[in-house]
Amino acid sequence: MKEEELIRLITAEVVKELCKRNNSMAIPVALSNRHIHLSQKDLDCLFGPGYTLTKLRDLSQPGQFAAKEKVKLIGPKGILEDVRILGPVRNQTQVEISIGDGYQLGIMPPVRPSGDLADTPGCIVVGPKGVVELKNGVICAQRHIHMSTEDGARFKVRDKEIVKVRCGGLRALVFDQVLVRVSPNFRLEMHLDIEEGNAAGLKNGNFVEILKEG
Amino acid sequence: MKEEELIRLITAEVVKELCKRNNSMAIPVALSNRHIHLSQKDLDCLFGPGYTLTKLRDLSQPGQFAAKEKVKLIGPKGILEDVRILGPVRNQTQVEISIGDGYQLGIMPPVRPSGDLADTPGCIVVGPKGVVELKNGVICAQRHIHMSTEDGARFKVRDKEIVKVRCGGLRALVFDQVLVRVSPNFRLEMHLDIEEGNAAGLKNGNFVEILKEG
Repeated sequence: MKEEELIRLITAEVVKELCKRNNSMAIPVALSNRHIHLSQKDLDCLFGPGYTLTKLRDLSQPGQFAAKEKVKLIGPKGILEDVRILGPVRNQTQVEISIGDGYQLGIMPPVRPSGDLADTPGCIVVGPKGVVELKNGVICAQRHIHMSTEDGARFKVRDKEIVKVRCGGLRALVFDQVLVRVSPNFRLEMHLDIEEGNAAGLKNGNFVEILKEG
Repeated sequence: MKEEELIRLITAEVVKELCKRNNSMAIPVALSNRHIHLSQKDLDCLFGPGYTLTKLRDLSQPGQFAAKEKVKLIGPKGILEDVRILGPVRNQTQVEISIGDGYQLGIMPPVRPSGDLADTPGCIVVGPKGVVELKNGVICAQRHIHMSTEDGARFKVRDKEIVKVRCGGLRALVFDQVLVRVSPNFRLEMHLDIEEGNAAGLKNGNFVEILKEG
């Protein structure tokens, strides 16, 4: 890891810790690039029977990790190479892409919360040992905030509540239709896709706030 | 042109006309993909001395057009192929890309109003007859609304005023820091880059409104 990257990471951690101690209402942001969650069955098809993902790095949400393994996605109009697999395996395979990625593939991904895959389009997934033709599972993830039960109480929001979130700076905006997910297993973080993050001029570790209306 | 596309265009025109007659406060949106405006000097370098751009289609702003000609942009980390030239030629060359494009090139474009190119990064531009090394001119265009003097009066906004704009739907949001440009030569339209448009779930011809605060 480069020294610069290390300093950036340490700084982000220190700021998060200070925010926690100060009982700050700031929420750190993470931008999600295109990725795929696989079922064990599809992982077997793509990488061989009984395959186990190799952890590249932990993600902020406890237990979640970016795997070393990548796949290729094919749609009617194009290909997305080097799409990262996120682990652990799930009950159903889910592909999360941006609207821009969708144009490249020739698939219009509907904006959906994670797991809500009914009537979504599919695509072809290519791994080193096989190919899976997904009937559905391609979505554009609805922007959302993960928070612990403790943070839910602190922010006075319920699981599945829809809130507005304000971002500052030169590309300041207020995101509406932000889904709140509260669980003892979650860690405070807002997830946006790359296009949403870029539209707001946000980078990983920047902070946003829930907008309280009068 | 496909029948479907024709119907879409006619519908958009009819809606615009109705909005005008009804004195609607709705503003149509146009999403700008990466593009370049060239000076005659740089056009000469790239396409040969005295070259004239060929019109592909008119743009919404009077006199502006998309040219048939394209160039290649090269940055320290990558290449953007098939970047459309917009005409007519200008006093200075200006490259407009998204933040995502910037990552691909390895250039971080600052968010700037059109024409404000001091201390911006450059890139290499490749044409069929030559290469130009831009010292500066690469920006991420600040989101803005073009409006006629008449529309300026109707919306009660001045040239260079900064306003907020509300977009509805599943990816509803309020854009802050939206620059208003009023000129007798402009036609009512909000310009966003592709990432901003996708982040808001907007397509060309969708409508947004200026947010009036109490």
